[in-house]
Amino acid sequence: VNERPGPKIAALAGGVGAAKFLLGLSGIVPPEQTTIIANTGDDIELFGLHISPDIDTVMYTLAGFVSAEKGWGIEGDTFECLNWIARYGEPAWFNLGDRDLATHLYRSDQLRRGRSLTEVTDSIRRSLGIGARILPMSDQYTPTRVATEEGEMHLQEYFVRRRAEPRVRSIRFDNIDRSRPAPGVEAAILESDAVVLCPSNPFISIGPILAVPGLRQTLTRTAAMVAAVTPIVGGKALKGPAAQMLRDLGHEPTALGVARLYRDFLDLFILDETDSALAPAIEALGLRVLVTDTIMSSLEKKRHLARAVVAALDSHEGHPASH
Amino acid sequence: VNERPGPKIAALAGGVGAAKFLLGLSGIVPPEQTTIIANTGDDIELFGLHISPDIDTVMYTLAGFVSAEKGWGIEGDTFECLNWIARYGEPAWFNLGDRDLATHLYRSDQLRRGRSLTEVTDSIRRSLGIGARILPMSDQYTPTRVATEEGEMHLQEYFVRRRAEPRVRSIRFDNIDRSRPAPGVEAAILESDAVVLCPSNPFISIGPILAVPGLRQTLTRTAAMVAAVTPIVGGKALKGPAAQMLRDLGHEPTALGVARLYRDFLDLFILDETDSALAPAIEALGLRVLVTDTIMSSLEKKRHLARAVVAALDSHEGHPASH
Repeated sequence: VNERPGPKIAALAGGVGAAKFLLGLSGIVPPEQTTIIANTGDDIELFGLHISPDIDTVMYTLAGFVSAEKGWGIEGDTFECLNWIARYGEPAWFNLGDRDLATHLYRSDQLRRGRSLTEVTDSIRRSLGIGARILPMSDQYTPTRVATEEGEMHLQEYFVRRRAEPRVRSIRFDNIDRSRPAPGVEAAILESDAVVLCPSNPFISIGPILAVPGLRQTLTRTAAMVAAVTPIVGGKALKGPAAQMLRDLGHEPTALGVARLYRDFLDLFILDETDSALAPAIEALGLRVLVTDTIMSSLEKKRHLARAVVAALDSHEGHPASH
Repeated sequence: VNERPGPKIAALAGGVGAAKFLLGLSGIVPPEQTTIIANTGDDIELFGLHISPDIDTVMYTLAGFVSAEKGWGIEGDTFECLNWIARYGEPAWFNLGDRDLATHLYRSDQLRRGRSLTEVTDSIRRSLGIGARILPMSDQYTPTRVATEEGEMHLQEYFVRRRAEPRVRSIRFDNIDRSRPAPGVEAAILESDAVVLCPSNPFISIGPILAVPGLRQTLTRTAAMVAAVTPIVGGKALKGPAAQMLRDLGHEPTALGVARLYRDFLDLFILDETDSALAPAIEALGLRVLVTDTIMSSLEKKRHLARAVVAALDSHEGHPASH
């Protein structure tokens, strides 16, 4: 399956879309070559548990037991604990499976014992037999707060409890000014051959990572090729509220709108073939464009996309960054 | 079902045996008349959870959803979380059901937010619709440590992980000197018409309660009738290691051996009819004895025992304590 040694890759990752891409990538590049930098802006503390949904989605996917239907959580998981805790008047809107809960319990207990999120994440991914290194973007808790027409709320309240229905006015990352990139994050960006922004929401998945002090600047100064896989195809997000958020926040709800958000550090934009008409406008931003099928509806299609991205990265290997 | 107003009762309770007796009692005396003082010496902290097995067994039983087969835990509960957490190298010997976990999560979170175990216990029992007041013996964490031929261990390690197999050399209650009776405990003992020691292990269920500073003295000075229901029938505990512990710790493994442990504050001993031959020896300790069927194999038999105990208490109502 690992067809060639391939480049050393750092991948900026949100949840479901990123996990699918990374699963494809793990069949193309030896996992040990990959460092995944995961969004923790959607982390939430509930019932005293520290929950890291994006890290977990990536891990459960790479470990091979993510729920195929939902794209997150553990296949066949049950929700007995969550249903029961509602008896005590606790909010039960956040989907916490019983098996999934083991991850949160372990993580939370280890954090309380003084280990960092970086350390605990590494323990968990090793326990699950995952070869790729997985780093949280930061060891600090920087919950994403969404100001909506219904008031400000935690990202998960907006996303899960309110099903991303309220219009979004602005987004902020609590405590982000006091956060730092987790150990290893900047080195991974600087020392990899390529950095890939996975097909994730630019505001609530990639946005928090870019907002960690110093991280965006590291992306502009790395010699690595920096590529982004479009999270928008035909003006729609395949999953989640990215297109509506682009509109709500005053951006064009297309791949071009996304490319503009990254133009200061990006070299290569991977555009879906549906949107090939947007290629000239993206190239006009000073970016190279790869047009390919970005839909990841099967393992083969995930690998196809990863293979196309890796090939495009390789073809520019050794080139100086364009910025 | 509540046949008469009945006396105001304070009940010292361990786990399964106590819960069965209290379920019977709840059909005989209005639950609001009863204050249950529960052992917390078997509390354990695992994965950052504060687990109070005896409180929970009593609550789940009174709420009507205890596992009929096991006598503890929630009927039909699953163990997905526990099975999964073993992947992370965590000990999975303690039986934690997924529904049960909701209680521990809620309790632990509330404790971390600064509420006392007394307050959280009251919230939980109200949420579960339990009429009787339930107090922990103490708000302090005083884990029972068992010195065995295999070394010292937490009571739950001895009881669950090691299935009560190692011989016991001594028992101590960690932190007990710095503990205090929980708010309301001493008042309940002093202001009730009767105090009942439920049929629970004298060393690891009743013992920790009696070891809370001041509590044993309160039992000697209350004007209430103090009665104990035997946890030993025919030289055996119906459940658990009480008989073996009596032997291991140098006591007679009979109801008489138990009665001796309580003689300094006890008025009435409820003896099983199987053991009626022991009545004279127990009376010789200065105790009154009620001989009845103490086996609680059905709801009717639980009520029979409760009815017999309440009748015996009533018949002495207004009598000064004999000590």
